[in-house]
Amino acid sequence: MSPTPVRITAVDTYDIRFPTSRELDGSDAMNPDPDYSAAYVVLRTDAADGVQGPEGHGFTFTIGRGNEVQVAAIHALRHHVVGRSVDEVCDDPGALYRDLIGDSQLRWLGPEKGVMHMAIGAVVNAVWDLAAKRADKPLWRLLADAEPEWLVGQIDFRYLTDALTPEEALEILRRGRAGAAERTADLLARGFPAYTTSPGWLGYEDEKLTRLAAEAVADGFRQIKLKVGADLEDDIRRCRVARAVVGPDIRMAIDANQRWDVAEAIRWTKALAEFDPYWVEEPTSPDDVLGHAAIRAAVAPVKVATGEHVQNRIVFKQLLQAGALDIVQIDAARVGGVNENLAILLLAAKFGVPVCPHAGGVGLCELVQHLSMFDYVSVSGTVQDRVIEYVDHLHEHFLDPVVIREGHYTAPTAPGFSAAMRPESIARYTFPGGIFWAADLDEKKGRAA
Amino acid sequence: MSPTPVRITAVDTYDIRFPTSRELDGSDAMNPDPDYSAAYVVLRTDAADGVQGPEGHGFTFTIGRGNEVQVAAIHALRHHVVGRSVDEVCDDPGALYRDLIGDSQLRWLGPEKGVMHMAIGAVVNAVWDLAAKRADKPLWRLLADAEPEWLVGQIDFRYLTDALTPEEALEILRRGRAGAAERTADLLARGFPAYTTSPGWLGYEDEKLTRLAAEAVADGFRQIKLKVGADLEDDIRRCRVARAVVGPDIRMAIDANQRWDVAEAIRWTKALAEFDPYWVEEPTSPDDVLGHAAIRAAVAPVKVATGEHVQNRIVFKQLLQAGALDIVQIDAARVGGVNENLAILLLAAKFGVPVCPHAGGVGLCELVQHLSMFDYVSVSGTVQDRVIEYVDHLHEHFLDPVVIREGHYTAPTAPGFSAAMRPESIARYTFPGGIFWAADLDEKKGRAA
Repeated sequence: MSPTPVRITAVDTYDIRFPTSRELDGSDAMNPDPDYSAAYVVLRTDAADGVQGPEGHGFTFTIGRGNEVQVAAIHALRHHVVGRSVDEVCDDPGALYRDLIGDSQLRWLGPEKGVMHMAIGAVVNAVWDLAAKRADKPLWRLLADAEPEWLVGQIDFRYLTDALTPEEALEILRRGRAGAAERTADLLARGFPAYTTSPGWLGYEDEKLTRLAAEAVADGFRQIKLKVGADLEDDIRRCRVARAVVGPDIRMAIDANQRWDVAEAIRWTKALAEFDPYWVEEPTSPDDVLGHAAIRAAVAPVKVATGEHVQNRIVFKQLLQAGALDIVQIDAARVGGVNENLAILLLAAKFGVPVCPHAGGVGLCELVQHLSMFDYVSVSGTVQDRVIEYVDHLHEHFLDPVVIREGHYTAPTAPGFSAAMRPESIARYTFPGGIFWAADLDEKKGRAA
Repeated sequence: MSPTPVRITAVDTYDIRFPTSRELDGSDAMNPDPDYSAAYVVLRTDAADGVQGPEGHGFTFTIGRGNEVQVAAIHALRHHVVGRSVDEVCDDPGALYRDLIGDSQLRWLGPEKGVMHMAIGAVVNAVWDLAAKRADKPLWRLLADAEPEWLVGQIDFRYLTDALTPEEALEILRRGRAGAAERTADLLARGFPAYTTSPGWLGYEDEKLTRLAAEAVADGFRQIKLKVGADLEDDIRRCRVARAVVGPDIRMAIDANQRWDVAEAIRWTKALAEFDPYWVEEPTSPDDVLGHAAIRAAVAPVKVATGEHVQNRIVFKQLLQAGALDIVQIDAARVGGVNENLAILLLAAKFGVPVCPHAGGVGLCELVQHLSMFDYVSVSGTVQDRVIEYVDHLHEHFLDPVVIREGHYTAPTAPGFSAAMRPESIARYTFPGGIFWAADLDEKKGRAA
C-alpha cells in the first residue's frame, strides 16, 4: 500500500531563466529580446508516516527581468497553502483559489491582475497538477470526467453574473456530456489541431521565414502566424513571402503584440488585407475592450483575436459582451489558474466564440493543451476553427513534453498537468546561481579582466 | 553657493507598515482589517564634490501583506534610475517614465497594471518630488507654471489617441492659462474643497458615526462618505443615522468598495436612494467598464464614481468613452505616477467629467492634493463639484502633512510633492525590524512562552 499524503508541507520556488534572447527566438514588435523564464513553484506533501508524497508543479511564465518579483509574489501566498490537507485541496481546488483571490490585503495589489494574480495562477495550477496526479489522470481527463455541478462549483461568478450565471454554466456543461465519449476517442486518436508561430518571429531573415514556413506546411500545420507591427513595408514583404510559400489554403494569422493605437491598427491591418490574414492578434492594448470592438468592426472579414495579456475573466466578459473578439486566446498562466480558465471557457461557449489558446514561452504549450482538450470534449464539442498555438521552444526541459504529430497536439496520457520541469534543467538554469548562469557570469568576469 | 547634484546615486527602499487593523480604522466591505503600509522609495543624489544632494521621495500605498512584493518590484527598476543625471531627469521626467513603462521584459508582468505599474508610479513620483524641490516649488505650482507644450510632452499618448490627441491636450492646457493667476490666488487664500470619510468606516458603532458626522459638519465639510455593501439592513440604518445628523444640505456619498455584481449594485443603490446619496463609489469591479455603464444608466440621479483601483489611463479612457462615470477618482499612487495622472486629468477635462481624487491610506492625501490643485489652476478651471477625499489618519508621519481648514485643503507651499515621511516614523514602523514591530514580536513571543 502506498503511503497516503496528508498535508502540503512546503511551497518551494525557483527563479528559472533561459538565455533565449541570444537567438532572437521569441522576438516581436514589443518584445525584442526576451529571456524566456519561469517563476516556478513546487508544492511538497508528506505522507502520514513521514515519507514524501507526490508533488504539485506550477509556474508563471515571464520574459526575464522581474522574474524575481514574480517569485516574491508566490512567496507571499505560502501562508494560505502550507499545512492544508492534500485531500481537501484536491477535492476542491476552488476553496483555495477563493482564499487566494480573496485575501483582503493582497487583493489591494490587483485586484486580480498583474504580478499578484499570476502568482495565484501558478499556485492554483500546481494544486490542479497535484489533484490530477492523485486521480491518476491527465488534467484534461480529470476535468472531462468531473460532474458538471462540481465544475460549476470551481468557478467564482463574482462580476460575471450579468453575462453568465451558474445556472447557464451548468446547462452548457450538461449539454456537453452528449457525445463526450466519442470526442474523447477522437481526441486520443487524432489529437487537437495546432498552428505554429515558429516561422514568423520578427528577428528572422526572409530565408529563415521561407524555410520554416515550408517546413510547417510539410509537417501538417494548417495555420501559421507572423509577427508584425514594427515596420509596414517589412510586414508587407514578409506576408508576401509567407503567403507565396504556404499557398492560399493555409491560414496565416498576424500578430502585432499590442503595438498599435486604434486608428493605426485599422490602417495597418487593411494594408495587409491583400495577403488574406485569418486573424489579427493583439492589435492594441489588452485593456482596451472598446478599442478592440472598434477595430473588429473596421477590419472584418479579418478576425480579431486577443487574450494572452487579458488579465482576468472580467475583461474577457466585456470583450465578449462588446462583440470585440472573434477568437478568445486563453493563456494557462496569465489568469488565476484552471478555475478562472473554466469561467473563460464557459463565457466563450455562452457567446459562441471559439477558443484558440496562446502558447509558446516556457511550458505554456504543456499546460494549455489540457484546457483546449477539455473544451473540446465537454464544452464547445468541436475542433472546428479551434487551434492551439505551438512554438518549438524549450519543450526538452519538461518531463512530459507536448507531442506534435501531423500538426496536432497528441492528447497527454501521463497523470498531472504536464507542468513538471526536469530536475537537471532547474539545476542548470536557476538564476543567478545555476550552472549555466554561474558559468556565464564567470565568462563575463573573464572578459572584463 | 550650494553644491549642484549631478547623478542619482541610489534607489533605497523601505517596507513600512502601520498597525491600523487594531483600531478598525479603514475597515470596509472588502477590506476588513487593513494594516496601512507603504513601499517607500528614496532617490539619493550626490553633488559633484561628493556632498549629498537633495532626495526624491515616493511610495506605493498597500494595506499590509504583500508590501514586500511591492518593494521587490521597486528594486527591479533600479537599473533604469541609478546613474541618471539629476538635471536631465528633472527637466524631463517623461523620459524616465517612458523607459520604465517600456522595459520590454518587465512589461510582460503587466502591462501597465498591478504591482509592477504601482512600483513605476512610486519611482516616477519620487522623481517629481526631486524635480519640485530642485525648482524650489510645491509640485502643484511647478505643474501650473509649466508650458503647455512641455506638459503635453510628459504624457504617453499610446492607446489614447482615439479619445484624446496631443493637439487636443495642448488646446485644453492653453485654454487653462486664462485666469490661472486669479485661481492661484484663490487657491492660496481658500484652499481646495475636501470631503471626509472619517465618520463612515464600516467597523464603527452608530454612536461613533453620529459623533464623527456631526464633527465633520461642524468642521466645515460639505460632504461625507459612508462605507456600505456588507449588509443592506445595516446600511439603511447607518444612512438614516448619518442623514439625520448632517441634514439635507450636506452631500453624502456611499462607497461599496467593489462588493457587488451589476444587478446587485443597482438593487442595493436603489434601496438606499431615499437617503439621497450623492454618488455611489466602486459599485463593482474596477475592471468592468461596461458594468459601470449599466449601473450608471440604472441608478441616476445617483452619480457613479470610481478610480482608486483603476489600473491605468486606458481603462479611464474607456470609462469616459462609455459614459460609465460621473466622477473620476484619480489616485496618486495606483497608476504610473504624475505623468499618467496628467493624461487622466486631461481625459476627464475632454469629456467634461469632474475629478474628485481618492485619498486616505498612507500619504495619499499629501500627494493627490497637488494634482487637484493643478487641475483647478490649469485644466478644469473650477472647484465646482470638485472635492478631494480626506481621512485623518497617519498624517503625523509626514514632514509636510496636509493642513485642513474649514473643510478645505490648504495649498502646500513647501518645495516638493509632500511625500517625505519623518525619519523617526520610518525607523519605528519598518517591517519587521523597526522599533514597533520588533517590540510587537517580542511581546508575542512573551505571551507564547
